[in-house]
Amino acid sequence: MITGKNYIGNKLSAKGNKTFTTFNPELNQENKSVFTEATTEEINEAVSLATKAYKEYSKISGTKKAAFLNAIADEILALDDVLIKTYCSESGLPEGRATGERGRTVGQLRGFANLIAAGSWVDATIDKGDAAREPQPKPDIRKLNFPLGPVVVFGASNFPLAFSTAGGDTAAALAAGCPVLVKSHPMHAGTGELIATAVIKAAEKTKMPNGVFSNLNSSGIEVGQKLVSNSGVKAVGFTGSIKGGRALYDLAAKREEPIPVFAEMGSINPVVLLPKALQNRAVNIATIYAGSITVGTGQFCTNPGLLLGIKSEGLTTFVHTLSEEIVKINPSVMLHPNIKKGYLNNKEKVVSQKGVSVTANFTEDVKANYAQQAVVTVNGSEFLKNTTLHLEVFGPFSMVVQCENEAELENVIDHLEGQLTGTIIADDNELENHTNIVNALQNRVGRIIFNGVPTGVEVCESMVHGGPYPASTDSRFTAVGVGSIKRWVRPFSYQDWPNNLLPDELKNENPLGILRSIDGKKSTEKIN
Amino acid sequence: MITGKNYIGNKLSAKGNKTFTTFNPELNQENKSVFTEATTEEINEAVSLATKAYKEYSKISGTKKAAFLNAIADEILALDDVLIKTYCSESGLPEGRATGERGRTVGQLRGFANLIAAGSWVDATIDKGDAAREPQPKPDIRKLNFPLGPVVVFGASNFPLAFSTAGGDTAAALAAGCPVLVKSHPMHAGTGELIATAVIKAAEKTKMPNGVFSNLNSSGIEVGQKLVSNSGVKAVGFTGSIKGGRALYDLAAKREEPIPVFAEMGSINPVVLLPKALQNRAVNIATIYAGSITVGTGQFCTNPGLLLGIKSEGLTTFVHTLSEEIVKINPSVMLHPNIKKGYLNNKEKVVSQKGVSVTANFTEDVKANYAQQAVVTVNGSEFLKNTTLHLEVFGPFSMVVQCENEAELENVIDHLEGQLTGTIIADDNELENHTNIVNALQNRVGRIIFNGVPTGVEVCESMVHGGPYPASTDSRFTAVGVGSIKRWVRPFSYQDWPNNLLPDELKNENPLGILRSIDGKKSTEKIN
Repeated sequence: MITGKNYIGNKLSAKGNKTFTTFNPELNQENKSVFTEATTEEINEAVSLATKAYKEYSKISGTKKAAFLNAIADEILALDDVLIKTYCSESGLPEGRATGERGRTVGQLRGFANLIAAGSWVDATIDKGDAAREPQPKPDIRKLNFPLGPVVVFGASNFPLAFSTAGGDTAAALAAGCPVLVKSHPMHAGTGELIATAVIKAAEKTKMPNGVFSNLNSSGIEVGQKLVSNSGVKAVGFTGSIKGGRALYDLAAKREEPIPVFAEMGSINPVVLLPKALQNRAVNIATIYAGSITVGTGQFCTNPGLLLGIKSEGLTTFVHTLSEEIVKINPSVMLHPNIKKGYLNNKEKVVSQKGVSVTANFTEDVKANYAQQAVVTVNGSEFLKNTTLHLEVFGPFSMVVQCENEAELENVIDHLEGQLTGTIIADDNELENHTNIVNALQNRVGRIIFNGVPTGVEVCESMVHGGPYPASTDSRFTAVGVGSIKRWVRPFSYQDWPNNLLPDELKNENPLGILRSIDGKKSTEKIN
Repeated sequence: MITGKNYIGNKLSAKGNKTFTTFNPELNQENKSVFTEATTEEINEAVSLATKAYKEYSKISGTKKAAFLNAIADEILALDDVLIKTYCSESGLPEGRATGERGRTVGQLRGFANLIAAGSWVDATIDKGDAAREPQPKPDIRKLNFPLGPVVVFGASNFPLAFSTAGGDTAAALAAGCPVLVKSHPMHAGTGELIATAVIKAAEKTKMPNGVFSNLNSSGIEVGQKLVSNSGVKAVGFTGSIKGGRALYDLAAKREEPIPVFAEMGSINPVVLLPKALQNRAVNIATIYAGSITVGTGQFCTNPGLLLGIKSEGLTTFVHTLSEEIVKINPSVMLHPNIKKGYLNNKEKVVSQKGVSVTANFTEDVKANYAQQAVVTVNGSEFLKNTTLHLEVFGPFSMVVQCENEAELENVIDHLEGQLTGTIIADDNELENHTNIVNALQNRVGRIIFNGVPTGVEVCESMVHGGPYPASTDSRFTAVGVGSIKRWVRPFSYQDWPNNLLPDELKNENPLGILRSIDGKKSTEKIN
């Protein structure tokens, strides 16, 4: 049952008088539940509970935290059909996507549970002391990762489960030992409340401190601003637009105590089509890309919004085929009328720029909130001159940049903003002859893909989902994969600390049997 | 021979007309060499060279970079007496400290050389693909650490070698694969130029690209501001005051592309004196601390500026003994007249606050630029009310905060700004009964020390030199130890990349024999 209330720690609360509803884009009508935005008082109470909870939660063993995360996964699965129906009604996304994303969310939680139960993630590092060293005795120093404090998580509009309430950021922060305050996404507040209920149930069942998790409703930007400005908050995770992420980054940087903001923001995910590949299989590539551009109504952060090639017969064939194939695909619904409005505005803005030709445009009428896919072309020289052409058009849209030669192509890549992904489509032995292109692309992206599509982000240890600004606000961290736990911890050293009072990870006996670095060598050994 | 010029890459250059000299605080007179501040044109040229050099340097093998770092160490040692004499003349620090700091600097360079020659630091992580996986094939993804780009390093006033031109930040950034632009510290510009010459010689001998290192003179803040604002610069390392570090942090956060600033700034390094320890050995502890407070004229970033205890006979004895002992120590010279002026101003500011009593004050006349040590006391309640009392008085000064009881002591710790270190002085089995105190201190510091002094920062893998703001601008990283290399790299993923074109660290054959994580397991094995 959706109550429309906030979770201030374990307690449902709705003290405010600002209310809102979510919207079903498929039916083009409001959903029934009415949500109450969190008040300043409720926000402060949630942060205060989180600060108290941190004192206990930061010290809880990996095994106990793992039980909590696994319990969250169990409770999410127990929500069953209600969750899937609410998800679909608040996003327009199909049921298959809902169950798939639930699977991913549960998988992420269990992945982090395994990581912290195993325990080696704390990077335990020990340098043994030497009282006899000259000219001064060498101290015994032992280091491990320690949680930062309460973390605020902003859910994403396009992933109501996997990047929202108990998504990747929340799972990573809870795994690290940080209490989480979720600024619920207004477009799927019902889905958010259901998941929050699952988290609270799991916290109670596994006896986690009250305040380890709160869920705050918001219809606009105020709740988020108040959270980020609150001195009890020690870090922020965000997935969304460049404008939104940058505003939070700026707010956090201006605090008396600035705090890290990890924001995963916009990306147009450039795809470089090398000449031989285009010459040999332009039609095949174009068909694959027509699918990649429109999958999920183009609402993935890794959607290929920019296709780069050198003018040739192959490129012409590619543009022609892509344009033909993409309009054959049935349009699909977007997440929300506002997302559709944004799509139309940004598409219009880009199309109206000098030198832009529309080569594919689905022109038939579509249902309300459905998006009509489009492809445009522009010359490399125009693209270099006009940064409006670099704008992310969030939706089923892509721009083909036609360069005069390889030098211009490299120049275009050099002048791209930072991106989540870069893809190179090449034939056998073709890559070797374009090292400059590969290197230029590497400098602008977080992940480089060979002969594939950027859509699809594998959740694994080796994944980097992030990249140079504005793909993310700090390219030194990833938002996907267990490595994302590093965003929420700081290294901490104990010097000459009594062995029995050290955390288990650093004790001589290595009771957890974890992998440690001892005097520069990795081992699971005890210290005698 | 000191020319007073800048190094713009490998070339000496002095196009400007703003000149300055350094100062010998011991002799209380200016040194002879005249330095020319870098012009905007020279700054831009240096950044442009660094950007070009990055393309090559970011791809150079660990072995070759290691040879470069070792060559820098060799060239620094070859400077011999000239370096030591210049160092002493520009800092007032004694010869023993100069040779000690040179040893540390050389040791840091060789430590990073060993790290990158061994190669495992890149955190190579591989998840093998699986074409047969349902519902979708699993891509092959491989990750490693990749350098951010040109880094600006601001040298510290108090470590002319180990935290300056070729100090820890520079060694870490060069090891990571980032070209370095040093904003030379005006107080030891001659020492800086000598070291820069060593770096340039090493770069030429080991055939590093021109622009991998530049050294820019400055008399004020403009050169640093221009460097941090330059869009070619991708990260900043700084050691110095809170005011200076925060200004650079703010500048970097306001850029169109914000960049990471790792600033190691102020700290008063609280020392908690537990009751039993004070009861049993107040005199002994006080004598040790008299030495720790005055060592290096109190100019270490880990100087114990704050001593916290609960009112008792033991604490009274401690204050009495500390005050007696500290005035017995001969005053020593500070780094620069401006540092002495700052010391006097800050001491005066703190002493004039309500509730502050001076219990030790070296009142005899001292030579110019020499600092007279002092100890003051204040009650816990006053300290909590007045944040001016939390000010770092850079020099041989410490404040004893006398708390009413353990609850007030915990409250005082909870309200401290972030610190580099925290120390607890306790007797056998005493720590166990003060878990709240330990936990509170842990939340405010980067390193916690048992029964020692905070001065002395061991250079080792397990060291954390950093901490919650304002000890550093990003507590997720350390400034000392080989782990500091992480400040200058970002993770980067290759997806389905051809094996022969992967960097050696990620190739199936593991040609470097490094430790890698393969499908979640650490090993040095090849992949078949």
